[in-house]
Amino acid sequence: MRELIQSEFKKLQEFICSQLEIFDGQGKFQMDDWSREEGGGGRTNTLVNGRLIEKGGVAFSAVHGAVTDDMKKQLGTTGNSFFATGVSIVLHPNSPHIPIIHMNVRYFELDNGTYWFGGGIDLTPHYISLKRAALFHEKLKEICDSVDESFYPTFKKWADDYFFIGHRNETRGVGGIFFDHQSHANTSLSKEQIFNFCLTLGKAFPFIYQTQMELGKDESVTEDQKKWQMLRRGRYVEFNLVHDRGTKFGLVSGGRTESILLSMPPVANWEYDFKPEKHSPEEFTINQLKKGIDWLSNGK
Amino acid sequence: MRELIQSEFKKLQEFICSQLEIFDGQGKFQMDDWSREEGGGGRTNTLVNGRLIEKGGVAFSAVHGAVTDDMKKQLGTTGNSFFATGVSIVLHPNSPHIPIIHMNVRYFELDNGTYWFGGGIDLTPHYISLKRAALFHEKLKEICDSVDESFYPTFKKWADDYFFIGHRNETRGVGGIFFDHQSHANTSLSKEQIFNFCLTLGKAFPFIYQTQMELGKDESVTEDQKKWQMLRRGRYVEFNLVHDRGTKFGLVSGGRTESILLSMPPVANWEYDFKPEKHSPEEFTINQLKKGIDWLSNGK
Repeated sequence: MRELIQSEFKKLQEFICSQLEIFDGQGKFQMDDWSREEGGGGRTNTLVNGRLIEKGGVAFSAVHGAVTDDMKKQLGTTGNSFFATGVSIVLHPNSPHIPIIHMNVRYFELDNGTYWFGGGIDLTPHYISLKRAALFHEKLKEICDSVDESFYPTFKKWADDYFFIGHRNETRGVGGIFFDHQSHANTSLSKEQIFNFCLTLGKAFPFIYQTQMELGKDESVTEDQKKWQMLRRGRYVEFNLVHDRGTKFGLVSGGRTESILLSMPPVANWEYDFKPEKHSPEEFTINQLKKGIDWLSNGK
Repeated sequence: MRELIQSEFKKLQEFICSQLEIFDGQGKFQMDDWSREEGGGGRTNTLVNGRLIEKGGVAFSAVHGAVTDDMKKQLGTTGNSFFATGVSIVLHPNSPHIPIIHMNVRYFELDNGTYWFGGGIDLTPHYISLKRAALFHEKLKEICDSVDESFYPTFKKWADDYFFIGHRNETRGVGGIFFDHQSHANTSLSKEQIFNFCLTLGKAFPFIYQTQMELGKDESVTEDQKKWQMLRRGRYVEFNLVHDRGTKFGLVSGGRTESILLSMPPVANWEYDFKPEKHSPEEFTINQLKKGIDWLSNGK
């Protein structure tokens, strides 16, 4: 089944890129094929200076090799060789009124028969709109509910906990869903069904983002809003480099740095102890960056 | 002796800020006093939009409290309460022809009688000049040699190993000196002498940087050079957030985030798989970002 998963993930990358190019209407993805000595490789697609997307990365990889001591420690596993394939996306828009978005679906397999799927989607608005956050969560709930009604509440909480910037005591954005180590052993689904769930999520991704792009693209942008966007991108960098387990594991385990750091924004700013004005949309946003918010009800 | 160290470090902060203001000729430091619930506090001085310095931070702190389980694990110690004081500096200049510089001196003491000093200075040129790197290292060697001739070679190697961006296989810059856990038990010096060494280093810092500022400030700057500077600042962010033990320990142990992340540049850029042109000064710089370079000889 691994060949099927790999080839479907590769097709998913192509599908997502072609949809995003249509919605953007200007930017084109550049493909970069790479291979790694230890086995396997990938294709890293990047789009810069689009009409709506300032910098976007859609990466596919399928790698295999020996399980290193580091991996054994991290995974607590007894396998000797592994296979891993996935699609990872981060999009940084031009406008502060369009959110940053991230999506990932991945499959991991060991020679001892163990396998699991993981993934997630989360949204990082520079300015939080309760209505738009609700639209986003409604769509995720719909996809989750179509396979198992326990998924959305479980994976929504998992996202709140995962996409959390501890040293800022802030969530990265309005969350979304996150899941890991999913196999027939710990879900109601068969391997095929979990795989199909990942694919459904991946195929819905461009349309989920299209909604957010459409809603934000015509709003006018002030200089102060641009500045705020750059500061929020700084927080995105902090999350990815300090807290994101995928990024950290990739960087210390000899992963391909340029593909891992595709998530970095084109430009980010830092300012000492910046405090938004009282009762401003910036302050409203900060106040919403909390775990456990019920975006579905709040947006009504 | 802890009161003396604390008050001398505080004076050192004032001295460095006043010298930097004189050299910059335009920027003024803003002071921000803070305290922490668990005990102690600090003063964080920041300068933005100077003539030569775009963003600079000079932080003093003196904190005390109970040794937490995290610290016990990290330090391998049996003490119950600690005291720590230090001065930390990172300066990001406007011009890509002036290097980023970092300096730190610190003192740590436990209630069981254990203490140590640590610190270092390292230079991160956006464009490496062998001559300017040699001037920098010559001054550090002179200060080291005045107390112990083994210091420079030992601490220079330590800096090469510490200021290394593993996932890029690059040093952060041309290195400098780094030392930690220095006490009368493991050096030729008494406690007073190690302390004086730290003070000498700290007092020399503004003049060391003045030399680098003077040499770079009148060089004209192209758009491509600005772009390169922003990409190198991205690397600086990567080092600090992914590898710097001080930053990581501070962020996970509940340190004051704004003071710890004072080291962040005002603006940083990322571009997928950027490669400098062959035989360009940018390529020359990349090729010099190696451990073990003898800057003293190379600059002759």
